Amino acid sequence: MPIAETPLSGPVPPLPRGFTVAGLHAGLKRNPTREDISLIISDRPATAAGVYTQNLVYAAPVAFDRARTPGTGFRGIVINSGNANACTGSQGEADAEAMAATTAAAIGSVAGSVLVMSTGIIGEFLPREKIETGIRDAATQLGSDEASIVRAARGLMTTDTRPKLAGDAFGKTAAGERYQLFGMAKGAAMIGPKMATMLGVILTDAALTPADAQRLLAEATDLTFNCVSVDGHMSTNDTVLLLANGAAGEPPLSGSSLDDFAAALTKACETLAREIADDGEGATHVIRVEVTGADSREAARRVARAVADSPLVKTAVSGADPNWGRIVSAAGYAGVAFEAARLVLRLNGVELFRNASPVSFDAAAVSASIRDNRETLIELEIGDGPGSIRFYSSDLTAEYVRLNADYHT
Amino acid sequence: MPIAETPLSGPVPPLPRGFTVAGLHAGLKRNPTREDISLIISDRPATAAGVYTQNLVYAAPVAFDRARTPGTGFRGIVINSGNANACTGSQGEADAEAMAATTAAAIGSVAGSVLVMSTGIIGEFLPREKIETGIRDAATQLGSDEASIVRAARGLMTTDTRPKLAGDAFGKTAAGERYQLFGMAKGAAMIGPKMATMLGVILTDAALTPADAQRLLAEATDLTFNCVSVDGHMSTNDTVLLLANGAAGEPPLSGSSLDDFAAALTKACETLAREIADDGEGATHVIRVEVTGADSREAARRVARAVADSPLVKTAVSGADPNWGRIVSAAGYAGVAFEAARLVLRLNGVELFRNASPVSFDAAAVSASIRDNRETLIELEIGDGPGSIRFYSSDLTAEYVRLNADYHT
Repeated sequence: MPIAETPLSGPVPPLPRGFTVAGLHAGLKRNPTREDISLIISDRPATAAGVYTQNLVYAAPVAFDRARTPGTGFRGIVINSGNANACTGSQGEADAEAMAATTAAAIGSVAGSVLVMSTGIIGEFLPREKIETGIRDAATQLGSDEASIVRAARGLMTTDTRPKLAGDAFGKTAAGERYQLFGMAKGAAMIGPKMATMLGVILTDAALTPADAQRLLAEATDLTFNCVSVDGHMSTNDTVLLLANGAAGEPPLSGSSLDDFAAALTKACETLAREIADDGEGATHVIRVEVTGADSREAARRVARAVADSPLVKTAVSGADPNWGRIVSAAGYAGVAFEAARLVLRLNGVELFRNASPVSFDAAAVSASIRDNRETLIELEIGDGPGSIRFYSSDLTAEYVRLNADYHT
Repeated sequence: MPIAETPLSGPVPPLPRGFTVAGLHAGLKRNPTREDISLIISDRPATAAGVYTQNLVYAAPVAFDRARTPGTGFRGIVINSGNANACTGSQGEADAEAMAATTAAAIGSVAGSVLVMSTGIIGEFLPREKIETGIRDAATQLGSDEASIVRAARGLMTTDTRPKLAGDAFGKTAAGERYQLFGMAKGAAMIGPKMATMLGVILTDAALTPADAQRLLAEATDLTFNCVSVDGHMSTNDTVLLLANGAAGEPPLSGSSLDDFAAALTKACETLAREIADDGEGATHVIRVEVTGADSREAARRVARAVADSPLVKTAVSGADPNWGRIVSAAGYAGVAFEAARLVLRLNGVELFRNASPVSFDAAAVSASIRDNRETLIELEIGDGPGSIRFYSSDLTAEYVRLNADYHT
């Protein structure tokens, strides 16, 4: 099966040992060239951890996975796109269970060893027969080659324009080999995290205890996927799952090797998080907001999110407009106490505001630097506290409006 | 001076007794047909109350007025548009004081008897000479005819397409005459209130104690101007001022006449608040969100605002798309505890969601009802608590993006 025409933002990272994947079109999406079912399978039981949407209205697969993670004995994840299986009541719960059970049977594993993710339209029932046929077909196509990885990553996509992949090697086994880490994610709108966001899958051939897996995934998510917003709208389906299968042949990580894993995990999650903002619907810029000097990380995040979510800031960036008044006023309504007189703002490295007063600057040059770079950097110092955060967003364009006014009907 | 071509959404309400107004072009706006200075003058000292932005980054006129209200002895308000006098440091403070002092001198009053409002671009210094000349000219043009009222209301406008006016008669004096209430407002973007929003002026010829004036203005604002969002971005300049000059010749209102005033005030503020949403930049629909069954009014407001501010909900409305999943998921992330299974959603009167499951409905008919009506009604029942709110927003269109990507540079 040829790889469909898919732009990639970089090389395809390898899968960790013991994992195979597949992706195919089962008929949930209208376009037959678009994969809508993905399987991620470990050849041995893996530890699983998960972080989930904090939305009170959450999808059936979120409930299914949340009840089962962290834990051990997992053989894989089944994912569909095109239908979120959200707001679907008890039928949705049964459909999620059926997806897991069908997958487990197809790989010769026990019920309860497979986790589930769904993404797409809210409030429609899954076409169970199409999905079950797709799962069984996908189970015959599992592979670890680049084409399989790309197809599996495409099976998560909705309005994403490209798969989002990340990978790294870290630490060393007793035999001197590197552990492998692999990540993939989807997300381009309804991105407004509070605890997790979007769909993400992280795989490693290291072994981890469930407690370590959960703790490190939560920490990495807090610094990465919780620092992305495309439109401030928290999804019903946000899920990030980590599978650690120990196929590298070592006991569970501890000490400095655990630290190495945490660093590689955070790096991969940040790569994927930035990719989500960069691929925000209709985006022409990725906006990086760096807030420093806050009393806490959470305070810094609130200020960063207020700036990142403001439609006026986002349209200023799409218009290459150094309209710093919109930025400092967004910081001012974030609900975080700071002295306005202490606020310092730099835009693409140029200082625009200090001592509660404008700084004279070359507006044409700053405008050109916004126009000519894919990333716009907004730096805000709000005091001298220890709290800081890096937050990614995307600009707001007429294309975002067009995509979302036309998506459903 | 002819009235410039201006659409009005209704008849021009009369000024209460003892008030005169003027508006003219002083040169702050580029277009010479656009008024940018307004005066509102009482022929006798009035009680004044004010509500203001809660943004930590607030403009010089906000600081000036906040320090002086509530109080008595006020003779008027001077307003400029085209420049917000925000983020302008100590020079901005001096400029606000100079506007008040120039106005007081021009009407033969004492310094400290005039309040100030500014709206427009953030971070530029006021052109003081143009403003002072404009104020002195305006003071020679004061009137109470319709043309004067429209010019004064236009002097507040920025990207508004029309002046926003409201008026009512209420109660009765001992002589059997009605008291008059008059309101005007501006606002079309950077509308994301938490305590107040936009600029608004309310005038009455009733007499009020400062304490009653402040309390009733705050209550009316909480139910009206605090329930409007165009883009969720709280301004640096939000101000609503109430002047009560007692020209009807009665002692301060009390008892049932005070209740009559409160009702008229809330009605006028709601009219103006809805007008702001209706005139939201680029809006093709005004969105009315009614939340009932919450534990408190504040909880209801948080749910309503989450729905009203979601770009996905706003684009669904502009696309006439009954995409109810976006609405219930926005309710779910508002940060208000409710049972998702209890949620009921109606869109333009048609039930779409109940018992955590979709309700079968005629999507084409609901889509047509959105397309064919200026107002879209979203009703959410979230439980059986006593808290409810009515919240107004506008839809999100490509025109909003165009206006705000191009506004500054």
